[in-house]
Amino acid sequence: MPVVDLVVRNIGQLVTCSAVGAGPLGLLRDAAVAAADGRVVYVGSAAALPELADDAVVIDADGALCTPGLCDPHAHPIFAGDRASEYAMRVEGRGYLEIQAAGGGIYSTVRQTRAASDEALLKGARARLERLLSFGVTTCEAKSGYALDAEGEIRLLRLLRRLAVEGPWRLSSTLLVHAVPEERRGERTAYLEEVANELIPRVAREGLAESCDVFCDRGAFTSEETRAVLTAARGQGLALRLHADQIAETGAAALAAELGARSADHLERISADGIAALAGAGTTAVLLPGAALCLGDPWPPARALIKAGVPVALGTDLNPGSSMTESLPLMMSLACTQMRMRVEEAWLAVTRVAADSLGRADAGRLQPGSRADLVLWGCDDYRHVPYHFGVNHVRTVVISGEVAFEA
Amino acid sequence: MPVVDLVVRNIGQLVTCSAVGAGPLGLLRDAAVAAADGRVVYVGSAAALPELADDAVVIDADGALCTPGLCDPHAHPIFAGDRASEYAMRVEGRGYLEIQAAGGGIYSTVRQTRAASDEALLKGARARLERLLSFGVTTCEAKSGYALDAEGEIRLLRLLRRLAVEGPWRLSSTLLVHAVPEERRGERTAYLEEVANELIPRVAREGLAESCDVFCDRGAFTSEETRAVLTAARGQGLALRLHADQIAETGAAALAAELGARSADHLERISADGIAALAGAGTTAVLLPGAALCLGDPWPPARALIKAGVPVALGTDLNPGSSMTESLPLMMSLACTQMRMRVEEAWLAVTRVAADSLGRADAGRLQPGSRADLVLWGCDDYRHVPYHFGVNHVRTVVISGEVAFEA
Repeated sequence: MPVVDLVVRNIGQLVTCSAVGAGPLGLLRDAAVAAADGRVVYVGSAAALPELADDAVVIDADGALCTPGLCDPHAHPIFAGDRASEYAMRVEGRGYLEIQAAGGGIYSTVRQTRAASDEALLKGARARLERLLSFGVTTCEAKSGYALDAEGEIRLLRLLRRLAVEGPWRLSSTLLVHAVPEERRGERTAYLEEVANELIPRVAREGLAESCDVFCDRGAFTSEETRAVLTAARGQGLALRLHADQIAETGAAALAAELGARSADHLERISADGIAALAGAGTTAVLLPGAALCLGDPWPPARALIKAGVPVALGTDLNPGSSMTESLPLMMSLACTQMRMRVEEAWLAVTRVAADSLGRADAGRLQPGSRADLVLWGCDDYRHVPYHFGVNHVRTVVISGEVAFEA
Repeated sequence: MPVVDLVVRNIGQLVTCSAVGAGPLGLLRDAAVAAADGRVVYVGSAAALPELADDAVVIDADGALCTPGLCDPHAHPIFAGDRASEYAMRVEGRGYLEIQAAGGGIYSTVRQTRAASDEALLKGARARLERLLSFGVTTCEAKSGYALDAEGEIRLLRLLRRLAVEGPWRLSSTLLVHAVPEERRGERTAYLEEVANELIPRVAREGLAESCDVFCDRGAFTSEETRAVLTAARGQGLALRLHADQIAETGAAALAAELGARSADHLERISADGIAALAGAGTTAVLLPGAALCLGDPWPPARALIKAGVPVALGTDLNPGSSMTESLPLMMSLACTQMRMRVEEAWLAVTRVAADSLGRADAGRLQPGSRADLVLWGCDDYRHVPYHFGVNHVRTVVISGEVAFEA
């Protein structure tokens, strides 16, 4: 065993999300975690702790709850501007066209994002990643999608790469094919061909994204368009994600399954056939209660998905239009109270299942070999986190065995 | 004008909730607020600021949003224990009886509260009031109701008085007649007679509460019982509040109106007649989105209440059973997205209207003569607070002209 350089002792309740402990969450009582070189090397009774280096960092959890670092599998952290005025209009019942006429909608974010300097975009995204971190999120998916033109999307992905290098968070970047640019409305087919034949190969060549995502829905891209783009992405070695069945049931979830996507996201209006298809393919359903809340949409059918055997993850959907929040714990509360996910299911949905949906089998769990990413909470029971809602209970966040945040 | 001892300058957007500024929120741009001896003495253009004392505290708001301190008109901050396990059971669809059999329900909190020391109760309540303060709440209603027996209720109200004296928050204490004690189940009538004839006069004599509240609902107290208790309370000079029409429509809102109550609270199932009665009496509807969220109840009909002319306030309903949260800003987000309250209505509902419902005409607004209680936010537009939800935007809280909290 390598020399232990971090120990968290005196953990009252340890949620491992692995086979190390008991029950669905892998629970241990009165436990300790030890790490070396950023990886977990020991999880178990404090009595059997391995020997420590002289200069090992020792954290006393003081009986607190300790969990893996959270994983947000669906976020749009890089954009400029906000859409608070659009939120106010929507609350008043104004329709999408009226909001667009008043300068709202996705294109307002696109205009502001294109006009923003690199520094401004980095500053905004960094502030959002810091807030995510303050809520315990150590691994975060990060989508482009607010520039739309090829150069702009490349710029956003390069900025995300800078933020990934800067850390301390782990980012998983995704090229999001979000909408046809305003200036190319008459050239939809040509735009998508350029995306498939030029942008995606360039993103893959430069290693700028792990995944490609398409907004496949009524009023967005059709299933045929989505299939063409994602097939090109798969051919370039990118993993696939889909915005699916949010606005209308268009068969997008079944398409995600057919294409072997890692995730189908949203699913407020998924059909029974869609659920069966996801279950058959092993595609993860990434549910986004923040968007359903803000848009007044139906809650995604978490229980039916779970019953069918679909892995269910939860994300913030952090974005300026429909879910402006960095609180992944609040998404757990909404999932429990509105979607009837059990508390244990909600925890797995923001840890192991979310990390698996990003292909990160060493995140979202605490077991020998996994990343030493963990959260100490200001409470002593995992049920307290969704129960005591709207409040940030995070006390300390550790990433790669180093303290990355303290409340 | 007295000597100014506090100035907040460089406010980008000032929400006065008074006639000083423009529109429903009394908005001013590029403004300043000055205070002397804990009261506002000036609200307006920075150019016309009155002369300051040499040692005046000057806060530079740096263009930020400034609002009155928030007012939470419905909270149960003093109790022992938590009910996270009951939350988990409810999420799983277990019924109330099963939860009670497992040791949950209100009586579990009563048992723990009775068994707790004064110090433990003070510590728990203080932590909750500090969290409320961190969310911008400067004035808070505080109900007893988790002891039930006379001596226990008196103890809770005395502890609340200690916390009120300790400050910095302003507390408005309420004697809550919550349930018949377990040990007196067979003596319901005798218990209520003692409440009316002994407990209420004692509370009034000792000045331990401003208000009396009764849980009037199916499975709780009947309208007849409630009328008897509240009539006694009114006779002792206490203001009246009611838990009304939450579980079932029992005519409780109409009773609140008939008795001239300051507020009827919850109202998830209020009838059209109940709404008309509140409007006629000028009774404030205190809506509690946190409880509706956690219990899966219908959202209270905010739009119908507002249309009828009923003043609408929002509260946290902070309590261990059905709404464990101190985030009043999150209640605004829920009210906007789920109850279609306009953003301006939601702001008034947590400031001026809420303060008025507690008889505090000098709180919840910023105008000459009002309390110098205000919040500086980490954003520059009032719409951002409900829009960017689940995140605490509070930067600085001032109470009586002194900084009471800094993020």
